[in-house]
Amino acid sequence: MSDLLERFLSVRQRTEEICAPLQTEDYVVQPIVDVSPPKWHLGHTTWFFEEFFLKHFPEYALYNDQFAFVFNSYYENVGARVMRTDRGNLSRPSVQEIYAYRKHVNAGFESVLTQHELSTEQINVINIGLNHEQQHQELLVTDIKYILGNNPLFPVYGDSKQLYKETDSGFIKIEEGIYEIGHQAESFCYDNELGEHSVFLYESEISKRLVTNQEFIQFIEDGAYGDSNLWHAEAWDWLNKSNIRSPEYWHKIEGKWHYYTLQGLKEVDPHLPAIHVSYYEAFAFAEWKGMRLPTEFEWEVAAKNFNWGQVWEWTESAYLPYPGYKKAAGALGEYNGKFMVNQKVLRGASVATAENHSRRTYRNFFHPNLRWQFTGIRLAKK
Amino acid sequence: MSDLLERFLSVRQRTEEICAPLQTEDYVVQPIVDVSPPKWHLGHTTWFFEEFFLKHFPEYALYNDQFAFVFNSYYENVGARVMRTDRGNLSRPSVQEIYAYRKHVNAGFESVLTQHELSTEQINVINIGLNHEQQHQELLVTDIKYILGNNPLFPVYGDSKQLYKETDSGFIKIEEGIYEIGHQAESFCYDNELGEHSVFLYESEISKRLVTNQEFIQFIEDGAYGDSNLWHAEAWDWLNKSNIRSPEYWHKIEGKWHYYTLQGLKEVDPHLPAIHVSYYEAFAFAEWKGMRLPTEFEWEVAAKNFNWGQVWEWTESAYLPYPGYKKAAGALGEYNGKFMVNQKVLRGASVATAENHSRRTYRNFFHPNLRWQFTGIRLAKK
Amino acid sequence: MSDLLERFLSVRQRTEEICAPLQTEDYVVQPIVDVSPPKWHLGHTTWFFEEFFLKHFPEYALYNDQFAFVFNSYYENVGARVMRTDRGNLSRPSVQEIYAYRKHVNAGFESVLTQHELSTEQINVINIGLNHEQQHQELLVTDIKYILGNNPLFPVYGDSKQLYKETDSGFIKIEEGIYEIGHQAESFCYDNELGEHSVFLYESEISKRLVTNQEFIQFIEDGAYGDSNLWHAEAWDWLNKSNIRSPEYWHKIEGKWHYYTLQGLKEVDPHLPAIHVSYYEAFAFAEWKGMRLPTEFEWEVAAKNFNWGQVWEWTESAYLPYPGYKKAAGALGEYNGKFMVNQKVLRGASVATAENHSRRTYRNFFHPNLRWQFTGIRLAKK
Amino acid sequence: MSDLLERFLSVRQRTEEICAPLQTEDYVVQPIVDVSPPKWHLGHTTWFFEEFFLKHFPEYALYNDQFAFVFNSYYENVGARVMRTDRGNLSRPSVQEIYAYRKHVNAGFESVLTQHELSTEQINVINIGLNHEQQHQELLVTDIKYILGNNPLFPVYGDSKQLYKETDSGFIKIEEGIYEIGHQAESFCYDNELGEHSVFLYESEISKRLVTNQEFIQFIEDGAYGDSNLWHAEAWDWLNKSNIRSPEYWHKIEGKWHYYTLQGLKEVDPHLPAIHVSYYEAFAFAEWKGMRLPTEFEWEVAAKNFNWGQVWEWTESAYLPYPGYKKAAGALGEYNGKFMVNQKVLRGASVATAENHSRRTYRNFFHPNLRWQFTGIRLAKK
Repeated sequence: MSDLLERFLSVRQRTEEICAPLQTEDYVVQPIVDVSPPKWHLGHTTWFFEEFFLKHFPEYALYNDQFAFVFNSYYENVGARVMRTDRGNLSRPSVQEIYAYRKHVNAGFESVLTQHELSTEQINVINIGLNHEQQHQELLVTDIKYILGNNPLFPVYGDSKQLYKETDSGFIKIEEGIYEIGHQAESFCYDNELGEHSVFLYESEISKRLVTNQEFIQFIEDGAYGDSNLWHAEAWDWLNKSNIRSPEYWHKIEGKWHYYTLQGLKEVDPHLPAIHVSYYEAFAFAEWKGMRLPTEFEWEVAAKNFNWGQVWEWTESAYLPYPGYKKAAGALGEYNGKFMVNQKVLRGASVATAENHSRRTYRNFFHPNLRWQFTGIRLAKK
Repeated sequence: MSDLLERFLSVRQRTEEICAPLQTEDYVVQPIVDVSPPKWHLGHTTWFFEEFFLKHFPEYALYNDQFAFVFNSYYENVGARVMRTDRGNLSRPSVQEIYAYRKHVNAGFESVLTQHELSTEQINVINIGLNHEQQHQELLVTDIKYILGNNPLFPVYGDSKQLYKETDSGFIKIEEGIYEIGHQAESFCYDNELGEHSVFLYESEISKRLVTNQEFIQFIEDGAYGDSNLWHAEAWDWLNKSNIRSPEYWHKIEGKWHYYTLQGLKEVDPHLPAIHVSYYEAFAFAEWKGMRLPTEFEWEVAAKNFNWGQVWEWTESAYLPYPGYKKAAGALGEYNGKFMVNQKVLRGASVATAENHSRRTYRNFFHPNLRWQFTGIRLAKK
Repeated sequence: MSDLLERFLSVRQRTEEICAPLQTEDYVVQPIVDVSPPKWHLGHTTWFFEEFFLKHFPEYALYNDQFAFVFNSYYENVGARVMRTDRGNLSRPSVQEIYAYRKHVNAGFESVLTQHELSTEQINVINIGLNHEQQHQELLVTDIKYILGNNPLFPVYGDSKQLYKETDSGFIKIEEGIYEIGHQAESFCYDNELGEHSVFLYESEISKRLVTNQEFIQFIEDGAYGDSNLWHAEAWDWLNKSNIRSPEYWHKIEGKWHYYTLQGLKEVDPHLPAIHVSYYEAFAFAEWKGMRLPTEFEWEVAAKNFNWGQVWEWTESAYLPYPGYKKAAGALGEYNGKFMVNQKVLRGASVATAENHSRRTYRNFFHPNLRWQFTGIRLAKK
Repeated sequence: MSDLLERFLSVRQRTEEICAPLQTEDYVVQPIVDVSPPKWHLGHTTWFFEEFFLKHFPEYALYNDQFAFVFNSYYENVGARVMRTDRGNLSRPSVQEIYAYRKHVNAGFESVLTQHELSTEQINVINIGLNHEQQHQELLVTDIKYILGNNPLFPVYGDSKQLYKETDSGFIKIEEGIYEIGHQAESFCYDNELGEHSVFLYESEISKRLVTNQEFIQFIEDGAYGDSNLWHAEAWDWLNKSNIRSPEYWHKIEGKWHYYTLQGLKEVDPHLPAIHVSYYEAFAFAEWKGMRLPTEFEWEVAAKNFNWGQVWEWTESAYLPYPGYKKAAGALGEYNGKFMVNQKVLRGASVATAENHSRRTYRNFFHPNLRWQFTGIRLAKK
């Protein structure tokens, strides 16, 4: 079996392993627009291979020609699709049928690989497809957590090991100077990391440690959620409309902070990193501490010297194109570029990130109010 | 086995039979706020017996004390509940668990009936609970139709017989005079039918036949959806916002009208009654015909002389209390009275109505824009 | 000068007198969608005569052919118009220009009346136009009150006399029987009052007195705004969304209830009728008292025996067509019929109603949540 | 008279000159939330001096202590305020009273300046107040244009000279290297320009000319508003919701493009700069041309070599703090920093910008969808 096929099957299998603890009903719901039903993720990642790779081989038969309508996410170039807000309204195709669809596509893939010599471009599309599926593996975990964690019964997902750990304290210094930013090796990366380029950085210091739950509880108890001076104007409106007063999944029960974890509802562990905070909260926390968030460039430079990978770390940087950024032609050009407005860059990786899917130059991005990802805070100071 | 127990078990079983053709996923979704997930109906009708009957017997153990929060519909007197818009966001309790909950309650009910002599009031509550469950049997059918009929794959529910049939033409005359309205026998009825009372009616004529699909297609093709003079002002706004141009479930495919039925997508049968129309459309249709809708009183008087029971028939009457209306004390008083504003009365019954759940005095009610019920049109003229 | 011309000029002048105390800025704003800017009322009532009467005379020159777009309210048959929500966004035409427009139309009217013999139909249109302008005189008062009463500076409109007065207590009995309802004389009435017809009424009793502020304060202090059992389901949602806990214009200042009046902010007078309540509040008040609101038919029958005319009185009746109701042909047919859904009937008249514009058969109608009209409560009991 | 007083009176007078062509009604309305009523601008700029300067002198008497509630814009530290969306609902204080308020504050200011030696900090506050009022002078022009330009009568503001002019063509080259960015002189600037700092720039070229109407018409006629590949995902949603297909104020009349100008409706002049476009449109235009927008750093460096000042020019830069950014203490710290998320930087100045209020380092900022400012497009290429 070729390496590529092996990798394909391994990634595909991992996706299904993530879903193994679910009950059928958990695959179906979409409690907020940002969360997709797990069965949609299973279908969408499969459709991606069909749409961008398999359907160009005449011997490949589409599983169901209506599935493009059901499983296209946002590719305007590919045709009409179910409105995003409607994903949770579709009971069909059933979970069983989507697993059959996955099998059909896997078999088609294997058959194509056996019979064809692939071009570099085709291999590139497969690589994108595999990285794409790995991104959805992370989204599956975050979306499953949201689905279960917002259920009044707080169901347990699994009995996994302790995921987070304490980290060293102290600060790392960055010296003033010109640094090279962006992906440089020949290995896979997304187009938004390309354009290796120089940036000028001033001297600064970046914390080796993530902000902990203990610190975040101090922030809460100091009344920071009620002090407008710590917040952006839009954050302040958001707080007042949503009545948010703690991170996502936190509940104060009989005077003690608890949070929903994939192992169920637990008392908050003060020593672990604070997670499930928005950029707005990360920024306000930094203001409260008299510090700031690092830029994505500072982060990329300093990351060699600290541990990262437990949570996605909000940066102060807006998600913008690097110098010389060129999006790909056709539908795959919609992958990154069209989101480069109104979002903030997150760096690092999280406990939910697929293995082999993290690198120092990776640019994740979300709107500043979102909290359902595994997001945390690292501070910087001048 | 007592008659009451037999009736209880029969009604309870019928609810589950309606759901038998569903796949697990179909039980979960709530595509619009008016449609509840089938698993919610299964749980809610069960909770009703637990809340209003079983929990007053000390030997009865609640299945799960959080279920009141999950399965209360709108009883303010009974405590907090999941917001209606969130019903489709809950993957748990699972379908399997809800069936276990039903079994638990059925067993508890049987046990209580075996061991206790029931008071009239208790029997009354059971009667309400059984009628309540029958109402939800109809809602199950309408909601399942909506869930499947708005899925782009148009799944088939079942291979049932032809449900609708053609009806006689012609008009029935009502003579001017005083008539008695309201429930008069000793059998079960809802509180909104009580208060037998006199009304004075003028001479009028009521059609023996329901408006057919053929007639409704003429209405469409005559441009009636675009003629503001036929519509209420609020109906006109509703049309323009929703872009509605045909009954619910209708699709024009290659120049021919089709509709989703529980047997799948079919060509519209011109001879059958037009269904899934709102009051707004029923009213506009009558305007277009130069006729009007009957009042609920005319309907009740004339109903002895025509066939009814295929569809719920919109009347011109607003849903208001009858003279001397008194709502029940406590939570069961919330059953009808608090909805007596902004809704229209529908009379009759539909193919989805439970057996033994229809009577000439029955007052059904919905907002004038709703169409997912099995609703149709009967015309009147002076 | 003809009687008709005299009446025309007198009505037209009264409209302007109502606006005399305003500053220019007060003519412009639309704080909620239901409230129109006074300058819009001035223009709209003028356009009505131009559109439905004057423009049919070839010698009459339109003042400005764009004014139809600006001043049409809701006549679909007459063409496009400014969206209702945009009325308060238009600074032009200026107040001065609208007064010039009024002069132009008045002069055109006088000239036409001098030179033409009018048909009965034309006189009928003028009559509708004058009654229409009188309705807008009342709306001008209610809208001005809203504009000034929701301004944080609480400006005074005028130093008028005490408008409301205490009324007798006690109840009037209605005997069971058949009564004639609807407009019977040859004098002017709207089409919605026509169709004199019989209704059968049961014995009942209707209060001679309106509910007073003192009684309404008791209702508030008894916690009635927080007792879900007193409210319709939609009313309860409305309360919780709007956070309403007292009638419109009421403010609790240093422990005492005050209200905005056209003479400025004042302490609530306990002996005067409670006004500016919605149907929802009127219904809840009646529930709290163990009574009910009268139907519009009971009201019309009993009104001969009590004093009315201080406030519009909510009835339990929905706004529906009388037997045999026929709307007028053409645009004037849009006057009443198209609003006959989702609204409640109010009977009587208010201190803001134009002289000679009230009669026992008059059917006013508003949505059940609205409170900016001069609305009050009269109770009935069986 | 001191220089400071002279400058104060001159700025204050200029504000009133801008409003001189208005009719009273034009001062009152707020057709969209972004546009404030001119009378609000007149009051708010006056309140600013009262709140941050005059009220600290015991001899100064507040004109009206409720005006802080009416005229505070967004200073959370200063207390409650009218909701932004309600500014257009307030008919009072009247225009005349606001002018009286301005006189009162001007006189108080003159009196304080005559009697007190001011500290550097106090002079700084006055400087901020004057620059603040100059910013509102620009907003007055843009808001007046919106108020008149969205009125169906298209009223003329004034008979001013030709404001825009054609500019040279060709591109200016920026050499790769390190450049100093930010305000360097001792003269006044806002805190967001401070923190002179180095940035590394790559070689690039920037157009000497703004994009013209002719070019923008080509963009429209090429179907660019319908080509999803040119737009950000959020821009595409915005286009589809708003149905925007041309710049603000453009109307196609009998096949020819017209636009509203302060001199009334005119045919579009193909040689003048295209204005009233959003960032989304500026970005899409650049995509369509195969170029890009400059960053704010490129702009600041290249600006020495091209003409600017006709329109605010969208840059690709997000509005973020410069290295070492510190906001001022207290309420004035709310001036800039709290808006540093979700907005784009515009550079330059416009025909509506106050004299002496523009500089190469000035950072203006708006949300990417806004178009009512005098905004245009300058292209860059690598």
